[in-house]
Amino acid sequence: MEEDDNHALLQTLNSFWNYREYALDEFWRPRMRRWRGLSEHQKRMIPWYERYLQQVHDAILANSQFYHSLVAHSVDAWEVDKAPDEWPIPTIADMQKTVLIFTQLVREWSVECNDERSVLLSRMAAFMDEAYPRERDQVSILVPGAGLGRVVVDLVRMGFRTEGNELSYHMLLVSRYLLNGSISCFQHQLYPFVHSFSNQTSRQSQLRAVQVPDMTIYMEVGNDCLMSMSAGSFVDLYGPNLNIRQSGYYSNDPRMRNIRAEAASSKHVVVTNFFIDTGMNVLDYMETIQHVLKPGGHWVNFGPLLYHFETDHHCEETANFDPLTGVVSDVREEPVKGLELSQEDILSTATSVFGFKLLRHEKNIKCGYGSNNAEMTMLKYTCNFWVLQKCTTVGQ
Amino acid sequence: MEEDDNHALLQTLNSFWNYREYALDEFWRPRMRRWRGLSEHQKRMIPWYERYLQQVHDAILANSQFYHSLVAHSVDAWEVDKAPDEWPIPTIADMQKTVLIFTQLVREWSVECNDERSVLLSRMAAFMDEAYPRERDQVSILVPGAGLGRVVVDLVRMGFRTEGNELSYHMLLVSRYLLNGSISCFQHQLYPFVHSFSNQTSRQSQLRAVQVPDMTIYMEVGNDCLMSMSAGSFVDLYGPNLNIRQSGYYSNDPRMRNIRAEAASSKHVVVTNFFIDTGMNVLDYMETIQHVLKPGGHWVNFGPLLYHFETDHHCEETANFDPLTGVVSDVREEPVKGLELSQEDILSTATSVFGFKLLRHEKNIKCGYGSNNAEMTMLKYTCNFWVLQKCTTVGQ
Repeated sequence: MEEDDNHALLQTLNSFWNYREYALDEFWRPRMRRWRGLSEHQKRMIPWYERYLQQVHDAILANSQFYHSLVAHSVDAWEVDKAPDEWPIPTIADMQKTVLIFTQLVREWSVECNDERSVLLSRMAAFMDEAYPRERDQVSILVPGAGLGRVVVDLVRMGFRTEGNELSYHMLLVSRYLLNGSISCFQHQLYPFVHSFSNQTSRQSQLRAVQVPDMTIYMEVGNDCLMSMSAGSFVDLYGPNLNIRQSGYYSNDPRMRNIRAEAASSKHVVVTNFFIDTGMNVLDYMETIQHVLKPGGHWVNFGPLLYHFETDHHCEETANFDPLTGVVSDVREEPVKGLELSQEDILSTATSVFGFKLLRHEKNIKCGYGSNNAEMTMLKYTCNFWVLQKCTTVGQ
Repeated sequence: MEEDDNHALLQTLNSFWNYREYALDEFWRPRMRRWRGLSEHQKRMIPWYERYLQQVHDAILANSQFYHSLVAHSVDAWEVDKAPDEWPIPTIADMQKTVLIFTQLVREWSVECNDERSVLLSRMAAFMDEAYPRERDQVSILVPGAGLGRVVVDLVRMGFRTEGNELSYHMLLVSRYLLNGSISCFQHQLYPFVHSFSNQTSRQSQLRAVQVPDMTIYMEVGNDCLMSMSAGSFVDLYGPNLNIRQSGYYSNDPRMRNIRAEAASSKHVVVTNFFIDTGMNVLDYMETIQHVLKPGGHWVNFGPLLYHFETDHHCEETANFDPLTGVVSDVREEPVKGLELSQEDILSTATSVFGFKLLRHEKNIKCGYGSNNAEMTMLKYTCNFWVLQKCTTVGQ
């Protein structure tokens, strides 16, 4: 592991290690102060509030047990030789991710979200049964933005050779723990909804426990090595060596250029699930999908178009470089926002520019993401499902 | 007008005056930079993008015309004698509100949101027909968080004497312009969705024009003075003089204490529409509703419980004070987050502590807020509708 990667790994581990204090500061301590500051008159109106806050406190402590198990496993798995007090200090964004991971855990690995997951799973399985009915261990699938690995595991259980790809160290550490930590079905009891104080029907709905994972994963995926995970940027690892500008997500490095050259036309299927809106440049994603698919291969997509950088004010340094010599030119600071293509524009670019053929398209599919079924606001994303086929003609 | 109020008024006016440059900086200029920085290869993929950005630019300019009319009207109405370059500099939060106002305009004053508005309107009208069928000009209604005044106008059109109350200068300036600016039906053409680049089905859905207002308001409300508006904090203007701690939203001031004493038992009905989750302390809101209602009066509520301060890290200085002498004690900095009561807890506190009687309650009502009907993600809030009746017994 390189020095930078090791630093990022330890910083992420440290964020999990510090979840408890962060969450108590964010969710519990200010509310205790509010309670103590209430007039006696108003305290008598809600005498149960202090006991309720104690339950919030205890739920956060229970959640932190999950992260302590994860850290213990990761320290072994990555042979970490430094003590926690030597690990790099996590940022606020790192700490916020330790809270968001609970939504992700519910979404991917709880019975709670069976219905949510089946919205994609049922459509994907139907298509795969039709397109790839046989010799599935010879069918290579790539899942960029694999998150905590559920879609990868579902595809492996269907018999496909599946590679997950993920950029986030938070996701990678949790998925590695779930996939390789010898965890039994329902081993961990979590309180994923404790962090949300709005739109609760009752205190009980906020304090509900959820068991994860909903299967003994290593029993399900077996030992035949159909599953793999890669760490890094999708465009960096699988994109073309032409036509993409160098940035934090795409490096001009001989090693990466070799990896990308080898990735060309290597996959039968790319599955993007709540993924295509996560990057700075959806055209780079489309170029990468085009590059990594075999002729006649399939792009299966599901999700909304909630562009992650839409309101981000940061800039990113980008540059052209010569793919043969590596010489850099035209270095520029560019805003990360922009290029948020509409659904129609993505599909028309995919078909008319990239030469994909539209096989299936379903619009306006409502789907939640890690919802608390007992909560008042069940945010539903309006999603698209589509299957595009890469042109079989040589040269496309 | 007091000096502080005048300063806030001019600062808000200045934010409307500067909407154009703010919106171009936020939504148009960074995307033009992205476009110019794209490789020629990718520019050829989306050759229409530059023309589309020109349309975004033009839509922002059209929106700014609305605010220029508003500023011209307000300068006359408030007899502003300073030139814009002498007005106080608006904050980023002020500028963000100039964008959010467009959602509010669609929500309250466009045909687009007829269906959204009728979710409350149909239920409220049915209840009012039953409870207050006659002598409606003798029935006093208060609408805290009146926003741009639509619910107030709807109640006045039903014949009720209705007072809107609003804290936000942005809302107050726009509603004053709409209600008193002699504006004709559909006079203004706005592009309210131009600020949102995510979840668009097509560019056309983002660039859609909406006409406001959907009626000639001054013709609808007539000249019989059933309508009035108050500016300030709901709790400060209408709350009890006991049991509420002094804060930025509740002052210890002899003038306000007199106003509050006069407000006691003065209203037949309080209508809260997307309001009860907007404050720091929902118990203060409930005390105020209890205080301002006549015995046997009705609290009609509609909305979600998306507590505005749930994730806010600020603190607010609060203190006890003697309602007779005004002497302050127990000054404290308190977090603004906290006390986010669940739906069940609000209703049980209202009935068991405040002695309200629950007349109607409907849960899980889905309702959008200023939605673009052509957009992919139509966020629906899960709302409650309830009617509570204040106890008729003396002393409650």
